[in-house]
Amino acid sequence: MVLDRLKQMASQITGQTAPPYPFDPLSEVEIEKAVAIIRKEHADLHFNAVTLWEPRKVEMQAWLANPEVNPKPKRKADVVCIGPGSKVYDGVVDLEDERIVTFGLTDGVQPLITMEDLNLVESVVRQDPKVIEQCGILGIPASEMHKVYCDPWTIGYDERFGNKMRLQQALMYYRPHVDDCQYVYPLDFCPIFNADTKEIIHIDIPKVRRQLSKAPPNNYHAASIEAEGGYRADLKPINITQPEGVSFTMDGRYISWQNWKLHIGFNYKEGLVLSNVSFNDKGNERPIFWRVSLAEMVVPYGNPEHPHQRKHAFDLGEYGGGYMTNSLSLGCDCKGAIHYLDFAYVNRAGQAQTVKNAICIHEEDAGILFKHTDFRDESCTVTRARKLIISQIFTAANYEYCIYWIFHQDGTIQLEIKLTGILNTYACNPGEDLHGWGTEVYPGVNAHNHQHLFCLRLDPNIDGPNNSVVVADAVRGEGEVGSAENFYGNAFYCKKTTLKTQATGHSDYDGNTGRTWEICNPNKLNPYSKKPVSYKLVSREVPPLLPKEGSLVWKRAGFARHAVHVTKYNDEQIHPAGRHVPQTSGEPSMGLPQWISADPNASIENTDLVLWHTFGITHFPSPEDFPVMPAEPMTLLLRPRNFFTRNPCLDVPPSYCSVPSGVKQGSTLVDRISRLAFDGEKKEGGACCAK
Amino acid sequence: MVLDRLKQMASQITGQTAPPYPFDPLSEVEIEKAVAIIRKEHADLHFNAVTLWEPRKVEMQAWLANPEVNPKPKRKADVVCIGPGSKVYDGVVDLEDERIVTFGLTDGVQPLITMEDLNLVESVVRQDPKVIEQCGILGIPASEMHKVYCDPWTIGYDERFGNKMRLQQALMYYRPHVDDCQYVYPLDFCPIFNADTKEIIHIDIPKVRRQLSKAPPNNYHAASIEAEGGYRADLKPINITQPEGVSFTMDGRYISWQNWKLHIGFNYKEGLVLSNVSFNDKGNERPIFWRVSLAEMVVPYGNPEHPHQRKHAFDLGEYGGGYMTNSLSLGCDCKGAIHYLDFAYVNRAGQAQTVKNAICIHEEDAGILFKHTDFRDESCTVTRARKLIISQIFTAANYEYCIYWIFHQDGTIQLEIKLTGILNTYACNPGEDLHGWGTEVYPGVNAHNHQHLFCLRLDPNIDGPNNSVVVADAVRGEGEVGSAENFYGNAFYCKKTTLKTQATGHSDYDGNTGRTWEICNPNKLNPYSKKPVSYKLVSREVPPLLPKEGSLVWKRAGFARHAVHVTKYNDEQIHPAGRHVPQTSGEPSMGLPQWISADPNASIENTDLVLWHTFGITHFPSPEDFPVMPAEPMTLLLRPRNFFTRNPCLDVPPSYCSVPSGVKQGSTLVDRISRLAFDGEKKEGGACCAK
Repeated sequence: MVLDRLKQMASQITGQTAPPYPFDPLSEVEIEKAVAIIRKEHADLHFNAVTLWEPRKVEMQAWLANPEVNPKPKRKADVVCIGPGSKVYDGVVDLEDERIVTFGLTDGVQPLITMEDLNLVESVVRQDPKVIEQCGILGIPASEMHKVYCDPWTIGYDERFGNKMRLQQALMYYRPHVDDCQYVYPLDFCPIFNADTKEIIHIDIPKVRRQLSKAPPNNYHAASIEAEGGYRADLKPINITQPEGVSFTMDGRYISWQNWKLHIGFNYKEGLVLSNVSFNDKGNERPIFWRVSLAEMVVPYGNPEHPHQRKHAFDLGEYGGGYMTNSLSLGCDCKGAIHYLDFAYVNRAGQAQTVKNAICIHEEDAGILFKHTDFRDESCTVTRARKLIISQIFTAANYEYCIYWIFHQDGTIQLEIKLTGILNTYACNPGEDLHGWGTEVYPGVNAHNHQHLFCLRLDPNIDGPNNSVVVADAVRGEGEVGSAENFYGNAFYCKKTTLKTQATGHSDYDGNTGRTWEICNPNKLNPYSKKPVSYKLVSREVPPLLPKEGSLVWKRAGFARHAVHVTKYNDEQIHPAGRHVPQTSGEPSMGLPQWISADPNASIENTDLVLWHTFGITHFPSPEDFPVMPAEPMTLLLRPRNFFTRNPCLDVPPSYCSVPSGVKQGSTLVDRISRLAFDGEKKEGGACCAK
Repeated sequence: MVLDRLKQMASQITGQTAPPYPFDPLSEVEIEKAVAIIRKEHADLHFNAVTLWEPRKVEMQAWLANPEVNPKPKRKADVVCIGPGSKVYDGVVDLEDERIVTFGLTDGVQPLITMEDLNLVESVVRQDPKVIEQCGILGIPASEMHKVYCDPWTIGYDERFGNKMRLQQALMYYRPHVDDCQYVYPLDFCPIFNADTKEIIHIDIPKVRRQLSKAPPNNYHAASIEAEGGYRADLKPINITQPEGVSFTMDGRYISWQNWKLHIGFNYKEGLVLSNVSFNDKGNERPIFWRVSLAEMVVPYGNPEHPHQRKHAFDLGEYGGGYMTNSLSLGCDCKGAIHYLDFAYVNRAGQAQTVKNAICIHEEDAGILFKHTDFRDESCTVTRARKLIISQIFTAANYEYCIYWIFHQDGTIQLEIKLTGILNTYACNPGEDLHGWGTEVYPGVNAHNHQHLFCLRLDPNIDGPNNSVVVADAVRGEGEVGSAENFYGNAFYCKKTTLKTQATGHSDYDGNTGRTWEICNPNKLNPYSKKPVSYKLVSREVPPLLPKEGSLVWKRAGFARHAVHVTKYNDEQIHPAGRHVPQTSGEPSMGLPQWISADPNASIENTDLVLWHTFGITHFPSPEDFPVMPAEPMTLLLRPRNFFTRNPCLDVPPSYCSVPSGVKQGSTLVDRISRLAFDGEKKEGGACCAK
């Protein structure tokens, strides 16, 4: 019975609409239609990507403003194909008129590496005589080549090979048993794979060799834990149930929850894309963001020895946060009533494929929303918080990235990322001096220092498209102690600096001033504070890019040079390290530096702008990160400041409310959810075991 | 039936032991015993505090090491009394021998303000002719004095009055109706109250007067929300249940959960005190912290106009995080199976009083603990996390501080603080220029800029008492781009600097190097990494003290001058702004600066040390913070680094585990808690409404 009701509810919240909404990702049918249209004229290509060619903003906004009069943006596909000789073709297909809009060869670029590209390399590596020879040198007989594995990364950039050939570097490992963790047995050499010819074209061999480690396996799978004494048996269940279902509704891929409304998109590169994010402020649906996504990331490793400089993965631009996304059908990592959305993509052969349950949508209890007690009489209001979480998890070879977009009732948007999975490892000899570039996390295992730097793309729409970005610093007031204007020396205020042009529109983090960045609409003032309505970016994990100015990483990952860049809005500018990232040399720097230098004097004040925020962590590994890393969280907030005229979540039912006049304001006001804490013996959904 | 089982479980986890454990807070019986012993010789005093005189560390460690041979530390009470003429007496009472150990007058200090002290002021203020006169000037007739309220703060320090008289400043408000939020109607003058004579001795009156605001009330209580259209009805319940009870056990006030074991103490000043924190590492109970607590805080306001410089509350040292703690019996803010502990304290008359349910102990689900998928075959292990939360909430006049000590399975200790409650407000005239020192959050309401700076006291015991503190900075490697040692410019490493002496043993935060502080045991190296076993303090909300060097706040809150201070352990050094904080002039600076300057050359390397960490936020108010502030979270982590030889939580049962050999390793390994996500139709405790 419960199940029937749940099934019924599930059917009310499906993620597909017909006809599709302009922001919707391409369906399987649309993908295969695009392929067929291309194939008619270009039969010999294989497919790297077929994704939504997003509607131009002007066109979309016009339609939204007046759908009766203005045309609905057409469905179009953005297509990337690869032909023989590592030739790359970019195109746009009109799915409604069934025609190719543009299609042509793009020279000197390599599009991202798909899972199919990755999976090919290992079998080639195992059969390559030179690789077999190298394995032999390290102590692996040819008969054991089936125990040799590789994580095939893009080559990044290697000046010896340029970008005409599509190349991968094979990070090599060994598994004594197929179920053993390979990162315990890194091999010290690195084959280079040509994806066009399917050959190993070179092997990088270090001067100092490291023999295959003889250390015992270091596993975390169930059999190994059982063999060591088994799992602990003292965890009692915590059941989280939503017997009446979820508190959100879906209209196609638009989700409405509390006062929030937004569209949930997804593509092969960025993964989750949230569009047209608005908040219903007492009946007035106020726009906040036009589009937000994680647009790029880079993971530079800090070991200067060749060829480790090539280890600086752009996981989104080089592999795709969508392509690598986990199906959560076996491993949904949330509790309660979960709603999933699938992700359709194209394979090499042009067929549509689907990752089932690529996106997880659910609610969580979030502790206290607000509370105040009057100390005079203990009259008290306490209200519980709820949050809405839209998440995905992707696996980038060894690492896992868990991405949680969290919406709070108070108007805050939170991006939380958890890092887990396995450290990238390299071989070391017993007693080898690692020179501080890495840590021996297990005998023979050198885990190199690295950074995870994410680039958040915020396309704001704070009460309309014309916005400004203000750098906000907490600073001391003028006047020394004893002066007339600051006699007691306690003066401080928020110093605000508006970014003006693309050339000067960047900002580093300053922990010393607790720097935040306010995205405001200078045309609209809060009626009480007389300050512009704004959303404030609060981000505290903002290390600088540690590879030096002029370094390979610095050149390729221009977005990571500053914590914040601001550019004038341009439909074409989505990918801050460039549209095609693998094998870019950084000369010139693609993406952000290119766009900025193309129009340095472009005003970014009171206009349609995009804020690019690079944040992340620097990771110096230690043994507790191995053989699988406990999730390391990082988070940032987008908080309304001077946006509302008061706390916008006062309409959330309180858990408890009493007032000084002595009236406990009705037991009906104790919300059903929290009654366990207030209703004494009438417990339900929990237990209050007070002494 | 369920209820019976719950009651049975509750009885198994009581918080009282007989005889008491040396760390246990004083019981009601012990408090009244101490009072009786004092009273025999000093009949005319009233009581400010009777709390546990904590066992000296040497004595306690000796007893723990060999309880058969070494004596158990005796129960003693630390007593503060106040006599006529604002005379202050400090003493220690031996509760076992029933004698006064020490007792005597302490000159020139004022102990903290109790709730009883606070509650007295309002009635005096309402009857004072000069206050009535001032109210009249602002438009409040004498007949409405019952609508006048005050938040009586300690005076902080006012050079006109010194510290011989016990003084409070009355921040004045008005309520049109008894249930209206008074912070909407601040009054512009500030009476000074003498607690000894119970008189108003002075009124600070600003040059520019602000009439009583005529703005309508701005309330958040139920009746006002109902009048505006009522509460939203779209939140469906989320039930969180633990049908088999909690996963922790209590032995007196020692809690054991997963591999953690620690003692939960509580006192009137610091609130929660966690002692003898250890982690069972494969059967070996390894000490980590001897004692951790929030030891002090200061909330400086940034308006330089007299007398706002006096607004810089030391909420723990001036009022007491224990004394102000909420009883959670009406307003427990957690879900699931909750265990509470009470808090006993002395009242002014010497009677023992109890705050029921002062401490909340509960578990929460914590999302993913770790996950990894092999991209080759999608074999996957995913394990869910659980956390243990020990919390309290205290109300400091207008503000609420929610303190959560969180223990994670991976060995991480997290301190999370949520700020909620109501902004401190001051009056402003329509259109008044606030000069950037505050924000008009509602007509007539000026909310001043302020900081919340907390001082965390960490008494480490990392595999033993001899520890060091290392400043860890992520820095670029030597050698420019193109140089032999750093050809590609990507080198970076963790630069470590050990703090050596008390005089030099401090460190500011450096966001630019992602600075952390490692508390290590230099005598014990990790067998794999060869680095000292350590716990790393990761704290990212670390603004500098904004009141200037030499300012009143800077002098009084010496602990806030640096993010980290390290001192040599001393039993007497618990309160970093001094034992008695109200009315200290800062000349000399009490607490930390005093201790350091008394022995500047004392070594803090490889010895028993204490780390004092000041962190917090700078708050520039905005209208969405009013009339009650959505909880603003801040957090810090203490993470094991090179402490374990591997991930210490691999023994937590996975939600799902499959391996490349193709064996899904037993459905028995899918934990009962998360099975809903994996077992298809056999749903229980939730719903997976995949399409």
